[in-house]
Amino acid sequence: MTDPTASSPAIARPSGRAPDQLREIRIERGFTRHAEGSVLISFGDTRVLCTASVDNKVPGFLRGKGEGWITAEYGMLPRSTHTRSDREAARGKQGGRTLEIQRLIGRSLRACVDRGLLGERTITLDCDVLQADGGTRTAAITGAYVALVDAINGLVASGAIKLPSCGRTPVFGAIAAVSVGIYRGVPVLDLDYAEDSDCDTDMNVVMNDGGGFIELQGTAEGHAFRRDELDAMTTLAQSGIERLIELQREALAG
Amino acid sequence: MTDPTASSPAIARPSGRAPDQLREIRIERGFTRHAEGSVLISFGDTRVLCTASVDNKVPGFLRGKGEGWITAEYGMLPRSTHTRSDREAARGKQGGRTLEIQRLIGRSLRACVDRGLLGERTITLDCDVLQADGGTRTAAITGAYVALVDAINGLVASGAIKLPSCGRTPVFGAIAAVSVGIYRGVPVLDLDYAEDSDCDTDMNVVMNDGGGFIELQGTAEGHAFRRDELDAMTTLAQSGIERLIELQREALAG
Amino acid sequence: MTDPTASSPAIARPSGRAPDQLREIRIERGFTRHAEGSVLISFGDTRVLCTASVDNKVPGFLRGKGEGWITAEYGMLPRSTHTRSDREAARGKQGGRTLEIQRLIGRSLRACVDRGLLGERTITLDCDVLQADGGTRTAAITGAYVALVDAINGLVASGAIKLPSCGRTPVFGAIAAVSVGIYRGVPVLDLDYAEDSDCDTDMNVVMNDGGGFIELQGTAEGHAFRRDELDAMTTLAQSGIERLIELQREALAG
Amino acid sequence: MTDPTASSPAIARPSGRAPDQLREIRIERGFTRHAEGSVLISFGDTRVLCTASVDNKVPGFLRGKGEGWITAEYGMLPRSTHTRSDREAARGKQGGRTLEIQRLIGRSLRACVDRGLLGERTITLDCDVLQADGGTRTAAITGAYVALVDAINGLVASGAIKLPSCGRTPVFGAIAAVSVGIYRGVPVLDLDYAEDSDCDTDMNVVMNDGGGFIELQGTAEGHAFRRDELDAMTTLAQSGIERLIELQREALAG
Amino acid sequence: MTDPTASSPAIARPSGRAPDQLREIRIERGFTRHAEGSVLISFGDTRVLCTASVDNKVPGFLRGKGEGWITAEYGMLPRSTHTRSDREAARGKQGGRTLEIQRLIGRSLRACVDRGLLGERTITLDCDVLQADGGTRTAAITGAYVALVDAINGLVASGAIKLPSCGRTPVFGAIAAVSVGIYRGVPVLDLDYAEDSDCDTDMNVVMNDGGGFIELQGTAEGHAFRRDELDAMTTLAQSGIERLIELQREALAG
Amino acid sequence: MTDPTASSPAIARPSGRAPDQLREIRIERGFTRHAEGSVLISFGDTRVLCTASVDNKVPGFLRGKGEGWITAEYGMLPRSTHTRSDREAARGKQGGRTLEIQRLIGRSLRACVDRGLLGERTITLDCDVLQADGGTRTAAITGAYVALVDAINGLVASGAIKLPSCGRTPVFGAIAAVSVGIYRGVPVLDLDYAEDSDCDTDMNVVMNDGGGFIELQGTAEGHAFRRDELDAMTTLAQSGIERLIELQREALAG
Repeated sequence: MTDPTASSPAIARPSGRAPDQLREIRIERGFTRHAEGSVLISFGDTRVLCTASVDNKVPGFLRGKGEGWITAEYGMLPRSTHTRSDREAARGKQGGRTLEIQRLIGRSLRACVDRGLLGERTITLDCDVLQADGGTRTAAITGAYVALVDAINGLVASGAIKLPSCGRTPVFGAIAAVSVGIYRGVPVLDLDYAEDSDCDTDMNVVMNDGGGFIELQGTAEGHAFRRDELDAMTTLAQSGIERLIELQREALAG
Repeated sequence: MTDPTASSPAIARPSGRAPDQLREIRIERGFTRHAEGSVLISFGDTRVLCTASVDNKVPGFLRGKGEGWITAEYGMLPRSTHTRSDREAARGKQGGRTLEIQRLIGRSLRACVDRGLLGERTITLDCDVLQADGGTRTAAITGAYVALVDAINGLVASGAIKLPSCGRTPVFGAIAAVSVGIYRGVPVLDLDYAEDSDCDTDMNVVMNDGGGFIELQGTAEGHAFRRDELDAMTTLAQSGIERLIELQREALAG
Repeated sequence: MTDPTASSPAIARPSGRAPDQLREIRIERGFTRHAEGSVLISFGDTRVLCTASVDNKVPGFLRGKGEGWITAEYGMLPRSTHTRSDREAARGKQGGRTLEIQRLIGRSLRACVDRGLLGERTITLDCDVLQADGGTRTAAITGAYVALVDAINGLVASGAIKLPSCGRTPVFGAIAAVSVGIYRGVPVLDLDYAEDSDCDTDMNVVMNDGGGFIELQGTAEGHAFRRDELDAMTTLAQSGIERLIELQREALAG
Repeated sequence: MTDPTASSPAIARPSGRAPDQLREIRIERGFTRHAEGSVLISFGDTRVLCTASVDNKVPGFLRGKGEGWITAEYGMLPRSTHTRSDREAARGKQGGRTLEIQRLIGRSLRACVDRGLLGERTITLDCDVLQADGGTRTAAITGAYVALVDAINGLVASGAIKLPSCGRTPVFGAIAAVSVGIYRGVPVLDLDYAEDSDCDTDMNVVMNDGGGFIELQGTAEGHAFRRDELDAMTTLAQSGIERLIELQREALAG
Repeated sequence: MTDPTASSPAIARPSGRAPDQLREIRIERGFTRHAEGSVLISFGDTRVLCTASVDNKVPGFLRGKGEGWITAEYGMLPRSTHTRSDREAARGKQGGRTLEIQRLIGRSLRACVDRGLLGERTITLDCDVLQADGGTRTAAITGAYVALVDAINGLVASGAIKLPSCGRTPVFGAIAAVSVGIYRGVPVLDLDYAEDSDCDTDMNVVMNDGGGFIELQGTAEGHAFRRDELDAMTTLAQSGIERLIELQREALAG
Repeated sequence: MTDPTASSPAIARPSGRAPDQLREIRIERGFTRHAEGSVLISFGDTRVLCTASVDNKVPGFLRGKGEGWITAEYGMLPRSTHTRSDREAARGKQGGRTLEIQRLIGRSLRACVDRGLLGERTITLDCDVLQADGGTRTAAITGAYVALVDAINGLVASGAIKLPSCGRTPVFGAIAAVSVGIYRGVPVLDLDYAEDSDCDTDMNVVMNDGGGFIELQGTAEGHAFRRDELDAMTTLAQSGIERLIELQREALAG
């Protein structure tokens, strides 16, 4: 098998980035005041406001089981995009893409929380895209993780959650996400809109800090992708996610 | 008639402001990149993102009449408020308050535009509340005016709108809005959430730079308000709006 | 300040009325049989059926607080208007105007009821426009007040509500509403459709029998209105509302 | 076969009517002003406002075929009934009963109109129940027929519809409807609410002035009904409908 | 009165059937595995999957009354018909025809069940049309009866329902349904699509095994039908339903 | 890397299948009559009816471009599952899972069609689950491919689609799908419900007959999955899809 990442000098990404280079990532905690966690995350020009809201109730199917719940909602401001999109509230329903993304965010973040330790409360992660330039769902997951940790730390600090004697907290790992794709034949990391709308394959990868896969969603846009391309993409994704998890740690330490 | 504003020393506003004092107002143009106008306006802790989007179509009732249209949509991010509100897109409909506010914004801004000069295009003003602390609708109107001017200036600069020989532009006046109320018996300007939820009367006033009223909506929350209170409130509103229009001019000049 | 009402001889209202003249008002109690209060009110050709329905429950946010609730719904029969409008039930949602009006009716009538004395029950005021000729919301408020009093008197008569020893009833004041506007430069009272669709300013005023303002909603349709015009309009409104409250009393005594 | 109507002396209807006796029927034309036909019909305490609205368009499936369309919508005011029902516009959809009734009204009235002579226009019959006491759908059909004739006569009088040289008009027969049922074992005509909610069988019959059946909808509420009961009910219905058609003629002549 | 069925030799039905001849009827129990009753019924090319699902709850209006409930839902697969119809789930609502049919199925089957003996449980009959060729609602009722009996027999067999000492079961009679009509002047039994779309009158008849009528719904499509035609149609229906009830018995015995 | 499939003897699948063994697959063409393609596909107890409907129109965004469109809708009959689910048409909206699946089916099948050769027509694939036992989306894709080929072959046979001189048809490859997962630590092929609800990782794979990936969607249900597990799962999927494509060919040849 040839190493597809090795061939990258042959192409120029529209942004001038190297194939394995993330966009500039910024994580701004406390962007708004009311939420228990509030993070503005930027992946280049993609900016997503992620808030974590704590509610002392759980959905019906969990009532009385002593477990908590993590759920997510996703939205794009109508003019976060190049041309204005309809407001979903005005159209009277959330589209399929929206529902798909918010289900993905929720599943991803449930994968790092001990819901028994959380107790009977729900944390809702609202991920609202202020500006879109590709990769909104991966930015949302990466930012929502930070908001979630802030909210849970608040619950621990206030005594609402009592830690067990071993000191284990309800968050047992870090979660981050990034997109990878095949752009003009070359595997690239963290696609922006210009690449995303012109690539052959687009894959969203969610991983934890143990290097395990949480979610993997790949779609052949142009031609079917091969197993070696899959390998190259997951390798790129892993390196990107390791860097994102470092940036999450720095932000949380800041 | 006694002057109710004169009695203000007797009370303390929760914020410590004088009765006729606005909150700190900030107007940040170009907050996002894609929209033809994009303004983040802050009235203290109330922050509203106002974007203006140009579309070269008009609603059915105006087709072929050579006139443009100005319309508005309003939304609150679910956790812009103290406790999380349901996402309207998820509930499947916009509530009465939302519809009422977006109708108000649209009417207010149509009052400063020559729709014949605008030509057959629609400008949609999306006002999305990132953080709420009272007065979101008045902040929205005041910020949307700046986004609207930016969008129309862009149309003039690109030659899409040809100005008549007299040089008259489609925007023939400035529009701003502020709330006033009777708080513990004293008329006050620009209510924040603490005042708004505890006042006797709440009035939203929209005026133009000629000192004329565009919209006036007053509601007695506690007891009915008297004519002298109405006078005191409209006087306060006028002074506040004059200041807001100055700030709009400075922002547009900046 | 000149007195704008003094200049009225100079114009002719389409109806031939004097500027300060109400349309013919009729209030017919007991128009239908099942409701606890049922009033057909006519402001000229505008006819609104207002019913008051008592339910021994309150909305969730009031449960267990010992207080009652007053709410309103508004609708127009599809062919109450010059051209048929879509039936909101068939379109699957109530429009913004409908929601705005029913919120206004509800707020207005809550301003005359002691909800503690009412006890844990809800009174719903359904205001259905059988024929529209301008001013449907003000006719609705004025008629709904009479239906509300009938319903509450019924509760007192049946012993469901026990009055305190002071004899105070849950209704502590009268409420009526009227529209005023600037028509061809002249302030006029109680606009009909011909005036409403051709006026410069349109204002809906709700007041109580103490001369206090409950709601004030003014909109500049043509040009912005001045403070002296505001004064002239509120003066006209006050005189109209005084007359409407007399007519309510006569109807209730009849 | 015994004649079940002969046995009627044995029972007392709650209203004291004879088994074959209609309630008091009133047909008031011109009840509202805007519609091309507007009829308030009363079957005793059941009162339905039926308006006919003409629109110079047809639904998509008829466009360009030179034929017209007759359709109907039905609604009940929330407090037309003993206890308040939800407003369908507020619930966001029309219930199954409503849809079923409005489909029945539309089919029934299409059975008396030559849609080719009508030309490419739609007549919508809005049947809104102001007060319900049983038999609202049959009152609606009987009243809507009168509103429909008024609307079509208006089109002929204005020259919008040109009659063929034979003078044939678009309405080629009269249509009326009545309910019949088996109440305590006895067939009765024109059930009111007290009977309707306590009967064994309920049947709605629509017939034309030639004695032909247009619609027949019978439901066994208690026990299954026999063929002789079916015969007795249709005989009663026919006599009632003959009388209703006389009353329609008198109203149209008045 | 002449016997209209006697004249049948004069016409040819598109299918070549005799006027009083049913299509080939097949009743296949256990078509799917999960439901408590699951029947695929065919009336010729019309194929409807009827499942009965038991739920140990009742709707709110029956709670605590010791009675059960029988309800039905109906749907057509989008391409069960000649041309594809919109999927109701995608359109966001069930149409009037669907609601009307499912109300009919529910009422019909409640007429053969002792809801006291059933106890506080709901049986939902889902009738989904896999292939439509006329008469889907009558096939649905006839098949749903078999699924209902299977479900109730299962409850008895498992001991969930205890029979009274007299051995009476909750199902006290058989129910079946068939359509009849006047096709080219001749009464015919069990219309297929070719006849249904070209007939003068269409009537759906639901009867029990005692020969009593449960539901009768006749509609004149072309001209009004006469009493002798009604008699001929109900006679035909009765013979068809007797045969269907035999086939139900055989299927249940099989 | 150890070969995880080699370790399979250590576990017992609930069904007794070998880890790399598909369930019994049946593909029945012409299951219903009206659709241009109609396939009942079974993956064991999972049975999905897939119909292909041709419409000579395209969605707005493709009008006038000379290209066709392939889209899909998915539904589950309410009692296809162990316990009855709500009917989406009755709830008034399609859930997120439904939308996600139908988007997946549509994308997958567009990957094998030359939309230029198809011409301006839409083929809608309706995939309705009659019985569910895990893997409904992969069965749907596999069956819908066969229905699609039947529909396109019909268009070619009727001359509606003219093939280019090279003889290339609009379908340029085969598409099939299967699920794989990690069940009790062992990679297994084609999960049934018992495995699906108790597995650690669940992955749906869509591939073409060239061995390329079209879609890959993996979700860690229990713990994050490793790269070697990913490799083992995709290897299993590939072998399963090769077998499914053989079965599709046999069915199409049959």
